[in-house]
Amino acid sequence: MPGARQLAGMHRPPSPPYQEPPALEDQDLLLAAAYVSDAQYNRNVPFETSPQAIRLYCFYNHWTMRAATYFFICVDLALAFFEEPAWLPLPFLATSIAEVLCLTVFFGRLVHFAKVTPQMVFWKDTKNICLMVTIVLTLIDLIIYGSLEAVNIHAVRWSRALRPVFLINFPESRQIRRAFRSIRNTLPDILYVFLLFIFSVLIFSLMALKLFGNRGLKTVEGSPYFTNILDITFELYVLVTTANSPDVMMPAYEFSWWYSLFFITYIIINTYIFMSVFLAVVYNNYRKHLKNEIRTLAYLKRHKMIEAFNILKVKVGTEFVVIEAQWRRLVKLVAPDISSSHLELLLRVSDEGQKGHVDKTNFLRLADLLNIQVVTVNIRRHPLEAWMPQVYQSSASLLVQKMVRHRTFVWVYDVIILVNAVFIALDEKNPFISYAEWLFLFLYVIEILLKLYTYEPRAYFGRKQFWNCKKIQQSADTGYCFDFEDTPALKGHHQHSEVVYYVFAIIGMEVFQGRVHFDPSSASPDALACGNPALKDSAFAQGRYCRNNFNDLASSLVLLVELTVVNQWHIIANGFALVTHQAAKLYFIVFHVVVVILIVNIFIAFILEAFFVAYSLEKSEVETAIEKKIQELGVGVQEEEMQDRSLVDNVDAKDSGFHGDEGDNKRKALKGLYFRIASKRYRTVDALLQQMFESEIAPEDENPSLEEILNVSPSSRHPRNPSFGNSV
Amino acid sequence: MPGARQLAGMHRPPSPPYQEPPALEDQDLLLAAAYVSDAQYNRNVPFETSPQAIRLYCFYNHWTMRAATYFFICVDLALAFFEEPAWLPLPFLATSIAEVLCLTVFFGRLVHFAKVTPQMVFWKDTKNICLMVTIVLTLIDLIIYGSLEAVNIHAVRWSRALRPVFLINFPESRQIRRAFRSIRNTLPDILYVFLLFIFSVLIFSLMALKLFGNRGLKTVEGSPYFTNILDITFELYVLVTTANSPDVMMPAYEFSWWYSLFFITYIIINTYIFMSVFLAVVYNNYRKHLKNEIRTLAYLKRHKMIEAFNILKVKVGTEFVVIEAQWRRLVKLVAPDISSSHLELLLRVSDEGQKGHVDKTNFLRLADLLNIQVVTVNIRRHPLEAWMPQVYQSSASLLVQKMVRHRTFVWVYDVIILVNAVFIALDEKNPFISYAEWLFLFLYVIEILLKLYTYEPRAYFGRKQFWNCKKIQQSADTGYCFDFEDTPALKGHHQHSEVVYYVFAIIGMEVFQGRVHFDPSSASPDALACGNPALKDSAFAQGRYCRNNFNDLASSLVLLVELTVVNQWHIIANGFALVTHQAAKLYFIVFHVVVVILIVNIFIAFILEAFFVAYSLEKSEVETAIEKKIQELGVGVQEEEMQDRSLVDNVDAKDSGFHGDEGDNKRKALKGLYFRIASKRYRTVDALLQQMFESEIAPEDENPSLEEILNVSPSSRHPRNPSFGNSV
Repeated sequence: MPGARQLAGMHRPPSPPYQEPPALEDQDLLLAAAYVSDAQYNRNVPFETSPQAIRLYCFYNHWTMRAATYFFICVDLALAFFEEPAWLPLPFLATSIAEVLCLTVFFGRLVHFAKVTPQMVFWKDTKNICLMVTIVLTLIDLIIYGSLEAVNIHAVRWSRALRPVFLINFPESRQIRRAFRSIRNTLPDILYVFLLFIFSVLIFSLMALKLFGNRGLKTVEGSPYFTNILDITFELYVLVTTANSPDVMMPAYEFSWWYSLFFITYIIINTYIFMSVFLAVVYNNYRKHLKNEIRTLAYLKRHKMIEAFNILKVKVGTEFVVIEAQWRRLVKLVAPDISSSHLELLLRVSDEGQKGHVDKTNFLRLADLLNIQVVTVNIRRHPLEAWMPQVYQSSASLLVQKMVRHRTFVWVYDVIILVNAVFIALDEKNPFISYAEWLFLFLYVIEILLKLYTYEPRAYFGRKQFWNCKKIQQSADTGYCFDFEDTPALKGHHQHSEVVYYVFAIIGMEVFQGRVHFDPSSASPDALACGNPALKDSAFAQGRYCRNNFNDLASSLVLLVELTVVNQWHIIANGFALVTHQAAKLYFIVFHVVVVILIVNIFIAFILEAFFVAYSLEKSEVETAIEKKIQELGVGVQEEEMQDRSLVDNVDAKDSGFHGDEGDNKRKALKGLYFRIASKRYRTVDALLQQMFESEIAPEDENPSLEEILNVSPSSRHPRNPSFGNSV
Repeated sequence: MPGARQLAGMHRPPSPPYQEPPALEDQDLLLAAAYVSDAQYNRNVPFETSPQAIRLYCFYNHWTMRAATYFFICVDLALAFFEEPAWLPLPFLATSIAEVLCLTVFFGRLVHFAKVTPQMVFWKDTKNICLMVTIVLTLIDLIIYGSLEAVNIHAVRWSRALRPVFLINFPESRQIRRAFRSIRNTLPDILYVFLLFIFSVLIFSLMALKLFGNRGLKTVEGSPYFTNILDITFELYVLVTTANSPDVMMPAYEFSWWYSLFFITYIIINTYIFMSVFLAVVYNNYRKHLKNEIRTLAYLKRHKMIEAFNILKVKVGTEFVVIEAQWRRLVKLVAPDISSSHLELLLRVSDEGQKGHVDKTNFLRLADLLNIQVVTVNIRRHPLEAWMPQVYQSSASLLVQKMVRHRTFVWVYDVIILVNAVFIALDEKNPFISYAEWLFLFLYVIEILLKLYTYEPRAYFGRKQFWNCKKIQQSADTGYCFDFEDTPALKGHHQHSEVVYYVFAIIGMEVFQGRVHFDPSSASPDALACGNPALKDSAFAQGRYCRNNFNDLASSLVLLVELTVVNQWHIIANGFALVTHQAAKLYFIVFHVVVVILIVNIFIAFILEAFFVAYSLEKSEVETAIEKKIQELGVGVQEEEMQDRSLVDNVDAKDSGFHGDEGDNKRKALKGLYFRIASKRYRTVDALLQQMFESEIAPEDENPSLEEILNVSPSSRHPRNPSFGNSV
């Protein structure tokens, strides 16, 4: 039977209608675990279902293999730090050996993937073709560059700009590919607005030429003002970014107040309205495409969970279920490191009636349940209480404990920290202040000792964490939670901007390296012009911008960040145009369009979306289910309780009020263990969006139009299941 | 019976159940017309319902009265141009007489309002109290300033900053008050984020002091770098606005590459994340509050229409309706200038079955129907065709007409315009180019003549308009319609920023007037320092910013626009701090917080919202109803038809295909008239939002919880109708 199922997602004949549980073999369980794991991590890789292919697939997904791949990708990207023009130059031989090593690893990873996935799917996937072509091109470039270097001809290492391909195209980088796809889909939509915007800039340039060209006005530097249409267009484009406001307007404004209206109109139309419309278009389209992608993900995840369920299901009474023993084995396979108490908790959530089996609805939630990180806290009595109960429970000691637990204690120390901050700001040469610092140190030691006395050590160190959470939650309570910790949400975004920065940095280094020199020690007059006579008396040299150069990767990246911030970018652009050619300005304009108009707007759209989604969706359904169960079992940890009362007291109170029922014996087994949902970490934008669409899919709906889904996102292809078409 | 109804909105006993139409008196109709008119213009003024009070109220709302009020408000605000420090100084006597005249007009308007509205309501309204207090304060200020001036003591004309109160508080300025209410409601929500942001800036300032304070670094100007905590905080606040990037970083970056990370981290957190969160918070809250306000408006509008319906209704069969004759009288009262064909069209829309009466659902739409501007086009044959049909209908003439109507003709002239634009950009001293301009002029004249020959003159001039619409709609078709013409949508916003600018300009003039001089003719060395030795060698003077001063209202407003654009604002702030006191920077920081963080974000939120609403709502229900009726009656003008075919041909074709039915005789009466919805003008954001909420109110729902509505927006108070509470 397992042999008949060659491809993942192929139709299995329905389970026999008779009662007896079918013989479940190990490889069936392994296959189900692979499906659940894929659903948990949103992997959409079609894999062969023969037993050794599944084992190979599990190995392919093992964290060590993925970490190794990422490590070599980082090494490959970091090589630019050591290649000419370099920060720490290494000989070409060393970097080329490192690069060949990286390429070998990538090739090995690709071969591994080819063994796991069906041949036909492998060769149809552009990602794999792309990887292989890049490996070959890089090798060719290495050979050409090496041979030319050997005869002392300097060549361009163009293949370095291709390195981000490895970051993008390995199956691990789903998020970044999704981000790029969304950008690509947004492009045609933004093009119309962009053309209208360019047209507007050109019309205003013509008007400016006619208005100011013949008045003989001079700029601050004494050059003619607005006489050349190309210069005017560049100046007005810079004005869109506000970087040369109000300087560009001053000569005309000095001539007549009325001319200021020309510039104000221009800024309102092109800076405020057009840039807002860009944000609106990018936001609207990016959100639309992202939602489509996420909707596809949610459908695919459900499919995988249904596949897993179909493998494991047995008929009990009238419905198909997964019996408890199988469920336990499955979860242990999917999450080998899960603690037995956590496993017990998940079972209690999934099998609410404690019938000994998990029904379909609850089984389908398993991937989400596994994604919720539950912190297990083991509570004990304070060691001092065990050693000398009389002293610890004396009224003086209890008063101290009550004092420390009171929230005024926290406030007092908050004030102390603020006062300390003011003291730090003051002049530290004053001896009184250096004494004060000793005082603050003493106060902090006292705080730690008091807390250690009051709280059980483990709870204290846990509590530290709580205190931090608390701080963030205070703003969350007022409704303006923005989860700064929520880095995974921005991960895909970060990476795709990294790719763009890397490519621009490599190109910039090839074009502008060595044109501008920064030498702080030199006292020659050349140093004032950044070692290049062309820069003499330029705003670039006068602003001491020599350090902003493309002479190594680190400097290039800082320079690109400065260009992203926009201000003074025209001075930098003019500087590099002076040392090369006026056409060099195009590099900076293209960077502005790509990074500021497109990527920064997507970043803002992302934050807006994260904010709105977090604002509208308070807690996911599954999270609430787990929390409810934790509360039912009386093993929850409320932050307020942690803060204000002794945990041990709290547990005792609950114990005495507890009237034993069906869950009593299990509850005893869990006693002493306390759970807390580490919810913040789970609440990424992706996860939130996914929840939104999951609620749209009814649990019995096994037949969404898969073709439609695949049309939405053709690149995350999934093998078709013929049964979907037939069971209408 | 009218006497018994003292207050608008008081409960009327239900109409008698018997069939005969009740005797409708003129004042009943007048009252109904007042309700409909209030609903049409979203006025929410409670008025007395005695006949002469209603007449007084109609007079109060007459456009001449409103225009006169606005005129005097403008005069009052414009006085700042002529008072010291002035652009065109006038003697104090002249401006004070003008101001007293304005105050008299405002007081008269207030007295008029007091006569219209019930006494109790008038005295409870803070707007009226506010107006009276402002009038008294301005008079006191005038007297004090005048007497001090008489003994040659210069005093501060502080009451000038109060002038926008008149703009805000007259009942006409509903939109601007609503905008201010939304801002005020947004404030507490933004405060938490703002405090967190300030905290972050302070922490980074401390870190910067510790990191860079003792390294002995120098700025480009040679002054010590980052040694004073107050200076550091100001510099880092400026960095949030990106205005001093990358200059503020260069000394540290030159010292070590690693220090660039400090600034990059700072910019990511404080510029990108915090500013995006500000936008998100402002956007979210402004939208929320605006929607609440609009929801209230929609409810109140429906209430007024129901009141009007209750006055006019008679029972026909089983339902209450308004008979046609009454409906006509009502519409003529509400819109005296309506053309009879337009009235006919509205009747056909409202009374679809042509039963001779208008039912409740259709009656309630009347206010919206009246708001839709319908352009009546009167189509005739081409005069040439009437005079010499043989020549005009000859094959050569028809070929010319076909050519002109073809869209290639438009494209050819588009290309000619573009070529002309390029020629304008070229050097006009070249004789060839000046000849070319004559050629272009000739081509344009030919175009006009050809079009006049082809199109009937009225249609041609109408068509011009269509061509413009067409241009805008082309982008609308691709889904990225942003209606730049849609100024009413931004009106409320424009005005509230005007108020803020005016107040800041008046304060700035009082504080900074005469500190900086701009004198382009002077050759003295003082002119290089803007006539103030304190500015010698400052960046302000070196950037030739002397024209940026507060010496008159016009210059002040330009300066404030420059501050809104943000770039180089720190140089302006430092300049004015040098000529007065370091505390002057506070003025500029407060301006930045109020205008850039709050108002510009609201502006962006507004554009985003307008974009999303326009994107999601294509056409309103009532608009569609009118368009459908226009099409049904065969009196519609399709833009495509206008473009490609002769209108007369088109009408003839329709005529021959028309099979007379019930509407035939009426249709004949409308023949020769063509309607077109001037829809763009109606589609303001307010109107769109209102439509969204109106669809939520069922037509028979006469009992929404009015208390709830009034709680949402306590200032737009409306007298309670006891029947609402009783008819549950």
